[in-house]
Amino acid sequence: MPFKEKIMTTTMNTRLEHDLIGDREVPAEAYWGVHTLRAAENFRITGQTLADNPHLIVAFARVKQAAARTNHQLGLLNDTRATAIDQACERVANGEFNDQFILDPVQGGAGTSTNMNANEVIANVALEILGHAKGDYQHLHPNDHVNLSQSTNDAYPTAVKIATCFAARPLLAAMGELEDACRRKAVEFRSVVKMGRTQLQDAVPMTVGQEFEGWAVTLREDHDRLSESLQLVTEINLGATAIGTGLNAPVGYTEAVCSHLAQLTGLPLSTSPNLVEATSDVGSFVHLSGVLKRVAIKLSKICNDLRLLSSGPRAGLNDIQLPAVQSGSSIMPGKVNPVIPEVVNQIAYQVVGYDATVTMAAEGGQLQLNAFEPVILHSIGLSMKHLTNGCTTLAQKCISGITVDEDALRRQVEQSIGLVTALNPVLGYAQSTMIAMEALHSGRGVAELVLECKLLTATELAELLRPERLANLQK
Amino acid sequence: MPFKEKIMTTTMNTRLEHDLIGDREVPAEAYWGVHTLRAAENFRITGQTLADNPHLIVAFARVKQAAARTNHQLGLLNDTRATAIDQACERVANGEFNDQFILDPVQGGAGTSTNMNANEVIANVALEILGHAKGDYQHLHPNDHVNLSQSTNDAYPTAVKIATCFAARPLLAAMGELEDACRRKAVEFRSVVKMGRTQLQDAVPMTVGQEFEGWAVTLREDHDRLSESLQLVTEINLGATAIGTGLNAPVGYTEAVCSHLAQLTGLPLSTSPNLVEATSDVGSFVHLSGVLKRVAIKLSKICNDLRLLSSGPRAGLNDIQLPAVQSGSSIMPGKVNPVIPEVVNQIAYQVVGYDATVTMAAEGGQLQLNAFEPVILHSIGLSMKHLTNGCTTLAQKCISGITVDEDALRRQVEQSIGLVTALNPVLGYAQSTMIAMEALHSGRGVAELVLECKLLTATELAELLRPERLANLQK
Amino acid sequence: MPFKEKIMTTTMNTRLEHDLIGDREVPAEAYWGVHTLRAAENFRITGQTLADNPHLIVAFARVKQAAARTNHQLGLLNDTRATAIDQACERVANGEFNDQFILDPVQGGAGTSTNMNANEVIANVALEILGHAKGDYQHLHPNDHVNLSQSTNDAYPTAVKIATCFAARPLLAAMGELEDACRRKAVEFRSVVKMGRTQLQDAVPMTVGQEFEGWAVTLREDHDRLSESLQLVTEINLGATAIGTGLNAPVGYTEAVCSHLAQLTGLPLSTSPNLVEATSDVGSFVHLSGVLKRVAIKLSKICNDLRLLSSGPRAGLNDIQLPAVQSGSSIMPGKVNPVIPEVVNQIAYQVVGYDATVTMAAEGGQLQLNAFEPVILHSIGLSMKHLTNGCTTLAQKCISGITVDEDALRRQVEQSIGLVTALNPVLGYAQSTMIAMEALHSGRGVAELVLECKLLTATELAELLRPERLANLQK
Amino acid sequence: MPFKEKIMTTTMNTRLEHDLIGDREVPAEAYWGVHTLRAAENFRITGQTLADNPHLIVAFARVKQAAARTNHQLGLLNDTRATAIDQACERVANGEFNDQFILDPVQGGAGTSTNMNANEVIANVALEILGHAKGDYQHLHPNDHVNLSQSTNDAYPTAVKIATCFAARPLLAAMGELEDACRRKAVEFRSVVKMGRTQLQDAVPMTVGQEFEGWAVTLREDHDRLSESLQLVTEINLGATAIGTGLNAPVGYTEAVCSHLAQLTGLPLSTSPNLVEATSDVGSFVHLSGVLKRVAIKLSKICNDLRLLSSGPRAGLNDIQLPAVQSGSSIMPGKVNPVIPEVVNQIAYQVVGYDATVTMAAEGGQLQLNAFEPVILHSIGLSMKHLTNGCTTLAQKCISGITVDEDALRRQVEQSIGLVTALNPVLGYAQSTMIAMEALHSGRGVAELVLECKLLTATELAELLRPERLANLQK
Repeated sequence: MPFKEKIMTTTMNTRLEHDLIGDREVPAEAYWGVHTLRAAENFRITGQTLADNPHLIVAFARVKQAAARTNHQLGLLNDTRATAIDQACERVANGEFNDQFILDPVQGGAGTSTNMNANEVIANVALEILGHAKGDYQHLHPNDHVNLSQSTNDAYPTAVKIATCFAARPLLAAMGELEDACRRKAVEFRSVVKMGRTQLQDAVPMTVGQEFEGWAVTLREDHDRLSESLQLVTEINLGATAIGTGLNAPVGYTEAVCSHLAQLTGLPLSTSPNLVEATSDVGSFVHLSGVLKRVAIKLSKICNDLRLLSSGPRAGLNDIQLPAVQSGSSIMPGKVNPVIPEVVNQIAYQVVGYDATVTMAAEGGQLQLNAFEPVILHSIGLSMKHLTNGCTTLAQKCISGITVDEDALRRQVEQSIGLVTALNPVLGYAQSTMIAMEALHSGRGVAELVLECKLLTATELAELLRPERLANLQK
Repeated sequence: MPFKEKIMTTTMNTRLEHDLIGDREVPAEAYWGVHTLRAAENFRITGQTLADNPHLIVAFARVKQAAARTNHQLGLLNDTRATAIDQACERVANGEFNDQFILDPVQGGAGTSTNMNANEVIANVALEILGHAKGDYQHLHPNDHVNLSQSTNDAYPTAVKIATCFAARPLLAAMGELEDACRRKAVEFRSVVKMGRTQLQDAVPMTVGQEFEGWAVTLREDHDRLSESLQLVTEINLGATAIGTGLNAPVGYTEAVCSHLAQLTGLPLSTSPNLVEATSDVGSFVHLSGVLKRVAIKLSKICNDLRLLSSGPRAGLNDIQLPAVQSGSSIMPGKVNPVIPEVVNQIAYQVVGYDATVTMAAEGGQLQLNAFEPVILHSIGLSMKHLTNGCTTLAQKCISGITVDEDALRRQVEQSIGLVTALNPVLGYAQSTMIAMEALHSGRGVAELVLECKLLTATELAELLRPERLANLQK
Repeated sequence: MPFKEKIMTTTMNTRLEHDLIGDREVPAEAYWGVHTLRAAENFRITGQTLADNPHLIVAFARVKQAAARTNHQLGLLNDTRATAIDQACERVANGEFNDQFILDPVQGGAGTSTNMNANEVIANVALEILGHAKGDYQHLHPNDHVNLSQSTNDAYPTAVKIATCFAARPLLAAMGELEDACRRKAVEFRSVVKMGRTQLQDAVPMTVGQEFEGWAVTLREDHDRLSESLQLVTEINLGATAIGTGLNAPVGYTEAVCSHLAQLTGLPLSTSPNLVEATSDVGSFVHLSGVLKRVAIKLSKICNDLRLLSSGPRAGLNDIQLPAVQSGSSIMPGKVNPVIPEVVNQIAYQVVGYDATVTMAAEGGQLQLNAFEPVILHSIGLSMKHLTNGCTTLAQKCISGITVDEDALRRQVEQSIGLVTALNPVLGYAQSTMIAMEALHSGRGVAELVLECKLLTATELAELLRPERLANLQK
Repeated sequence: MPFKEKIMTTTMNTRLEHDLIGDREVPAEAYWGVHTLRAAENFRITGQTLADNPHLIVAFARVKQAAARTNHQLGLLNDTRATAIDQACERVANGEFNDQFILDPVQGGAGTSTNMNANEVIANVALEILGHAKGDYQHLHPNDHVNLSQSTNDAYPTAVKIATCFAARPLLAAMGELEDACRRKAVEFRSVVKMGRTQLQDAVPMTVGQEFEGWAVTLREDHDRLSESLQLVTEINLGATAIGTGLNAPVGYTEAVCSHLAQLTGLPLSTSPNLVEATSDVGSFVHLSGVLKRVAIKLSKICNDLRLLSSGPRAGLNDIQLPAVQSGSSIMPGKVNPVIPEVVNQIAYQVVGYDATVTMAAEGGQLQLNAFEPVILHSIGLSMKHLTNGCTTLAQKCISGITVDEDALRRQVEQSIGLVTALNPVLGYAQSTMIAMEALHSGRGVAELVLECKLLTATELAELLRPERLANLQK
């Protein structure tokens, strides 16, 4: 575990810090302090650290920066400290101290440890800026100054929401990239006719372009739903302090800190109208997670279709051909597998799982706080990261390289019994049914039977079976 | 199983119908026909019938009515048949033939059997209106006339969406009733001070009113989110026919039928811009189900809090007292249990389960259709019904009768160590901490210690501990 | 709601009963009493009643019968009352009073209301047997005599476990029937060669019989796992009374009642070694539900395969043909859909949902009891019922009627590139790869290319491609 | 991403490798080759690598080692190559080359890429042992020699199962450690009487020891269930090759390789009786995941109880006191939170989520293979790892330091109305009820009232309320 090695290699040079439990040696060069150390020892679960989610570190830096500016403005923080904290936050936001965020993202304490980690790092960076040694908290204190007018219970959820908004940007971009890839194929294949299928049975003709366009439309809808659900996440509770009553936060603080934070992050933040409710509520995360699950489900359905349509090459549907991105089986020469859709399916299954975790964690919240926000943040963060990577990968390594065999697809349409539906309005339902039955039992083609029975001339039939007509492209 | 008995008691009087598989005797008095009979035999799963969801029957009647009006308007259906179908639909919508919808809601075939059931019932009612015998389909045919210009693949999802909108009305009303009940208690208890708790540990004071107000706000938010998600469900695909290409639907049909249906249902319906996508897409149901899960989770959290806060009467939190609605244990005299919140918790767990079902079913859709819409409809329908009943029950049988012991709650606040936080700005953090530690170890009260040490006068202390101040009501 | 109508139609003839809340009129002819009435009014959630699960009624009757025998044996119940209760239980177990179990299965109170319902019905039946009027509880009391030495907290979970064992019998039988159906097809198709597929891509040859045999084996494994998990459910906690300490249960009761109950039910029941743990624990239900989910998932996979393999008839895999059980689309003449596998898929999705409900309910248990056992029972009961119906339906209406086109499948194998794997050991990997590539790009067959290149004689090739060899049947 | 940096820092020194897609430069010092490189580029999802799961690397090394020994024994591999591969596997198993397993654990291709990664690393280590350059595959080839007689479809699931067995050892040990910690507390608190609670309402007395003993029993049961489910995982399919028909695996291979692998791993491995079924089946993983979910749910229930019982210190249940392991809120002096149970709750929620992922992935398997085994492995691996860490943490940092205030708990019992149940057999139900009601309304104690009414002497009462009697310790 990273922090452990850090401690091991630094035992020779330490500083002393203390908390309510007692005194502890902290590595001298560490920007984090005793609270972080305790939490690092208490929570050794995933082997990952907060640094794996840089969005959260930036978000925390901005929250602390906004609080410092507001406290300064309200006369609670003097110029020296305010400036030092502001500069320290800026450097933390720039990623200079990511390695100091050593805690496991899965932790007890409702985010208190993460907040403590941020307070301590920012305080010690600020102390250095002021020319003091790390740990000389009498000059600038993690709790008294960096955490001033805040509680974990408002600072943490606010930072989590901002981090979520940051993480959504690449996801929305990746979804857009995938939508564009589908749309380009929709144009490319706009006149390639094929059999549509319902319940996996041959139905009526359509174009390959319509199929890709359908996926593009689906992705756009999901993009819009995700954007909408993110608006819920821009409602923050900074100023609520411990339980939403705002105890010990000065008058004017709530409004001012939201304004500073909106400016620092570029996000359209607003303050919840009821801070008691907002402090215990994780509804917006449940909502967002539900929408991410929707995105995942739809993406999985597209990947299922891609794998199904590219099944073959001889004993499958073989409607489309996916680009080969790696060799297949060593035991089966020439085999190429739909590995890219397969990995995206698995991402979707993960997102369904993360949503289950979020659901449980949200339901478990009690009274004035939800103690399980860390795992909510962690799960949503992973969902967004994996979906981002999945969409990009699918667009670049699969969709954009798809090809079709137009002639083979047209032959399949011509041989299909489903054609009979297109002849329905001309030949009537009864005659159509008879032709369908004869085609099924004899194994012959509908067109062939129609011509043989002289029900239509070759010219009439050619018109009826024009790809544009079959797929109703004129409509 | 209901339909079985029906068949049993009517074997002496039947009529003959046939389909592609062959001939079958159908009970003479049945309005349903051979397709319904086959499906009733094929799907014997839940023991329930479509009649358990009257919203769906009304919705189907309106879809068929709107189609008949449109087909008549476009010249595809003559006056006689159009009028008869219209009247038949009206009677079906009024619930006159609910017992004819005998199929299991959990069925294969993507809703085809339900659509067939509706077509057959409406056709036979119309035949009676026209003075013909049931089954004389040469005069008016279930498929050729009732189902004209439609496919199951557009008629069924459209009816399902309308049924969902209908079912949402009582749910939204019930949520509103529950919100109102909470809000009335918020007013009643607005000045009753109590200990707030975070992570189940004593935190700082608040009022009971704030707690109830928080729940009211949560319910209002969920109400708004649910309303928003229902808008997605008003987008229909009528006119898409089999796979969204609109094959065999006449020009002008799609626009006209949506207009008729909107008028008949009073719903703000619109047609999906891309019918190929819309016909295979169940995204709006996944979305809605996710929002219902959110509602359930929040409701469950409220019920968890109610049970927790009313724990006791001696060895519990005992912040509030729930009204007794039934005797408790026979072995433990005088025991009263929080049975109403308990049943609502269980409803919430069911909704989480139904959402899992919807998720699986949605992911399983393939190519141009999702064959699993019946279980999606069934699951969402049960979620909405149970949540409706749960909210009403919770409002009427629990929330509205809750009482508190104001003096006991005030004593708890006065004895609490958490009080020390309120004294923080006056006594300072260091002194506050010392008092907190002394209180914890000695078991004495913070106020008592402050007075004993003469840190504050009784008057000063009384002011600091005023309920309105403690709960920050002025802010 | 059934009970409501009952009350309405009987308002003219009532008897008076009372509980801690006060007096209430109860319909004179009702065998249930005031506690049931209160609960019926409190819980109006699903519209279903306990009578929908007859297994539970039988189970409760047996629990009460075993308790009465034990109490009689230990001298706590006199001969008259013991005999009357015993006879009443026998009649209840025979289903004579199912309509008296009017409560909603989804209820608060940890099953207390269901227990009260059983106590009241049995008491009133016993009173009638003894020649007393219903409600004359001074002669024989629901709590003092029917519920003697019991608490809901041991009687209810015990009855639930017995009901679960009862419900498992038809499920195991249905799974066996489905297994047999698969095995018969495995024999029928044992020499029909076809292409095996991995990742939906053509792999190497196998037989259709191997595929069906695989499903049979899977079902047998699931049957065995389910049987094992049911053993966990035979461990009961009767004698635990309220919280497992056995307070007020006489010495010797626990052992004797288990013995009586085992005899009455024919189940290998045993008493939990630690009754405090057993009374709050629902681990065996979580376990069973997990196994039911496993069964469902595997069943769903089989149905997915059935639908995939029968896709077509022209533009699909078309490996197998499912029997037509109902007409398909009205708009698409001659279309037949895989409706039976589709309904079983949906059952599987429901079971996954019910497991989610069980998971939430189990996690929500607190301290000495799980208050949410009713929804656990309800969910597992529905899982078992639907799976039973699904397995039977799949066996009878789908598997048993499946046919194949042996020649077409053989042609597919002969045309497959996957054949090259079978030639690997003879021609070598390098040459095999070259042939595979040439086959893929030219669209020609592997066998044809091998013969053209004179790499093997027709005789040699025929031997190498013998179905038995290809599918490695000799091994 | 780790592999990317590797490639970046080594662009100046490369070797050329090729596959079916074409030629690629591979870093000269890399033990992995072109197939690994392609997969590393294709799958960039989680940022984690296979090296995060060392159990899998050991397992793969053992599979390849067993295969090499078997191939050598059957004469398919010469002495030189067999010895080199054997030695290479030994070194890989010892963790010497963990950094060469650079692939993302979430990958498409059903594990092919992981298998390729293992084949390439082992081949190049073996080549070095033989004095050849890395990449000189004509001497010893990843596919022809390391992968000989195998397919990914048997090698990968077998390795996954072995890795799972390895990962289960520390989990079972951690569960045992937690059980022991509970049992020690059960002994320590065996005579400390407290109020038992059902449905969060005061019930009847028990001991704190009984509560801890109940948790120990629960953990032991879960331990046993987990051990049982692991037995299912010891059934492997090595010898199945591509689809279970064993095509191209020599006679005698299947039996011999299982024997070698059992010896090398020390696991009681056996070969599945039906390899076709076994190759597509992931039932044992679904089963195991279900059991892990059970473990998690029970653990979460224990943690919920711990948090509930330690609520306070003034306005909570305060039955037990958890050890302080870190400071609480900065804004609330002296606050200590139950952070250890909280983190274990969150682990449990994760396990529920991982099980949902496994469920989806298992259901998604098609025909002769489940392409989604990588995410199944990944999810189960994380479940086991997090549960291991959670159990250890809970035992060491929470359970072992729990204390109680025996006097306060006894006072709570003495003041409880629930006491009346213990007096039931002596005073009778009617009188008990009257006392209970009087106690509830007057706020006085049951014992006090009994003495005041002279219903019992102080001696009698003292006997009736003896802790051992109340908690029924004699039974």
